[in-house]
Amino acid sequence: MILTVTLNAALDITYRVPRLRPHTTHRVAETAERPGGKGLNVARVLTALGHHAVVTGFVGGGTGAALRGLLARETAVTDALVPVGGPTRRTIAVVDASTGDTTQLNEPGPAITPAEWGTFLHTYRDLLADARAVALCGSLPPGVPVDVYARLTRAARTAGVPVLLDTSGEPLRRGLAARPDLVKPNADELAALTGHTEPLRAARDARRRGAHAVAASLGAAGMLAVTADGAWRAGPPERIAGNPTGAGDSAVAGLLSGLVEGLSWEDRLVRAVALSAATVRAPAAGEFDRATYEELLPRVTVAESSVRAG
Amino acid sequence: MILTVTLNAALDITYRVPRLRPHTTHRVAETAERPGGKGLNVARVLTALGHHAVVTGFVGGGTGAALRGLLARETAVTDALVPVGGPTRRTIAVVDASTGDTTQLNEPGPAITPAEWGTFLHTYRDLLADARAVALCGSLPPGVPVDVYARLTRAARTAGVPVLLDTSGEPLRRGLAARPDLVKPNADELAALTGHTEPLRAARDARRRGAHAVAASLGAAGMLAVTADGAWRAGPPERIAGNPTGAGDSAVAGLLSGLVEGLSWEDRLVRAVALSAATVRAPAAGEFDRATYEELLPRVTVAESSVRAG
Repeated sequence: MILTVTLNAALDITYRVPRLRPHTTHRVAETAERPGGKGLNVARVLTALGHHAVVTGFVGGGTGAALRGLLARETAVTDALVPVGGPTRRTIAVVDASTGDTTQLNEPGPAITPAEWGTFLHTYRDLLADARAVALCGSLPPGVPVDVYARLTRAARTAGVPVLLDTSGEPLRRGLAARPDLVKPNADELAALTGHTEPLRAARDARRRGAHAVAASLGAAGMLAVTADGAWRAGPPERIAGNPTGAGDSAVAGLLSGLVEGLSWEDRLVRAVALSAATVRAPAAGEFDRATYEELLPRVTVAESSVRAG
Repeated sequence: MILTVTLNAALDITYRVPRLRPHTTHRVAETAERPGGKGLNVARVLTALGHHAVVTGFVGGGTGAALRGLLARETAVTDALVPVGGPTRRTIAVVDASTGDTTQLNEPGPAITPAEWGTFLHTYRDLLADARAVALCGSLPPGVPVDVYARLTRAARTAGVPVLLDTSGEPLRRGLAARPDLVKPNADELAALTGHTEPLRAARDARRRGAHAVAASLGAAGMLAVTADGAWRAGPPERIAGNPTGAGDSAVAGLLSGLVEGLSWEDRLVRAVALSAATVRAPAAGEFDRATYEELLPRVTVAESSVRAG
């Protein structure tokens, strides 16, 4: 199985309003709820690709119960979340139907106690025994040590399980010290980490900081991978319009499934870009459109980058 | 006891953000949750005034469980809410700390089945047996007949229990047909009902439509009451600045407690205006500040209106 870790899972709530007018009252006609958090999204896409995916992390309160109910009813993902006393956070996406723009409100998440953190570490180590790869995803809830991803990476490496790290800011910076197999920042996160805005240069710098390989998502332009063996860019055959929510998580699922299946770097990137674009084009945010995915797969372009990776 | 009915109770969630910027992502640092819905607010104020208050209406889902937990922990209100299959709605108030302005997002509420509606009617009739007055408050969830307040008013009148109706739009219009003892619209609701923007004229028109008495809240200017015996205006001694959330519900509690205690119309209005102003001035939205209330009570002005009520 493939394990994904979501320390700050969320109940994702979407409100559709005719028009968002600040400082007025809106009657929300249309509401939707889904289990949220990067690792949960990655696991959902992995199961759609035929893999057995297990999620762990923290879950609690009424929002956590709602999340678990939706996860069981709507996905094939195996739930190994660890119960905590605080409530799972909500995220509210307010979609303005007049423009299609989204205003996002994200709660911070439950405060994790040292005892809960200890229980999680036990669960995580047990799950690693059966894992063929692990993805460490997203932001941290209050109370979790900021070097958590370094600790989780070390435990996975000890267990011989390859690690993909997808986070940002200080948790990313600290996580790199433990030498994860792959990090998947977007261009902004990579620039914030390294101080370089040119993606190839920034990716090479991120490798020097500890990542064995870097796969950077470049938005509509596709992805760039820099590894010990070379550098590649992959991109969709045409510009794909739509909602980019979840596109990065689908890319992670593409990279991770490709790693487990022993695909070449070129083929992993092609899969990640096709999944990402098929997510942008899907009608529901965070889902991927299978027909678009299959149609794009043979048409994604991939080329070795002219500059050798450092 | 005093009974309040909240057919569309809510879990009220408040998010404080440094500044609301539409179409961007906000990390919410401060969140608060409270049991919401007009009748619940009225009941909370009634208990603070020393009355035994019972709430009924519908409650369901994880949000409903959260609401009941907060009601039990934080208030002295007796919970006689009727469980339903659909989830209690959320309301989200986004407070922009830079301006103090609030942007409100209100979910529609659970769809009520005919069986759930039947169960509620039984519970309501049982509760009326012990009620000295009943307040029918707020908007309707989907699936409830639009003439519900007329039916509930008739049942209360059959049981000899005086009825205060506090709603708007079509439910108010239909409710008036059953001749409630008192309606408490604000100036906008009264104008929407009658087509008259002059409050005294509009209130007299609302009496002709069926209300035995009308107490209209005029915002910072206070209240106007029109009854079979006369018309009175009451107002605070000075303009009170603050958050008007819940001020109308506090006014209802003032009118209702005054009715049960056999106060004169003048004294009911004075209490309602003082409670309303003490709610505007309270630091937390929807609470009332007891010191302000007691300080204002002897200073609220009340005068018989020069024009005789029709």
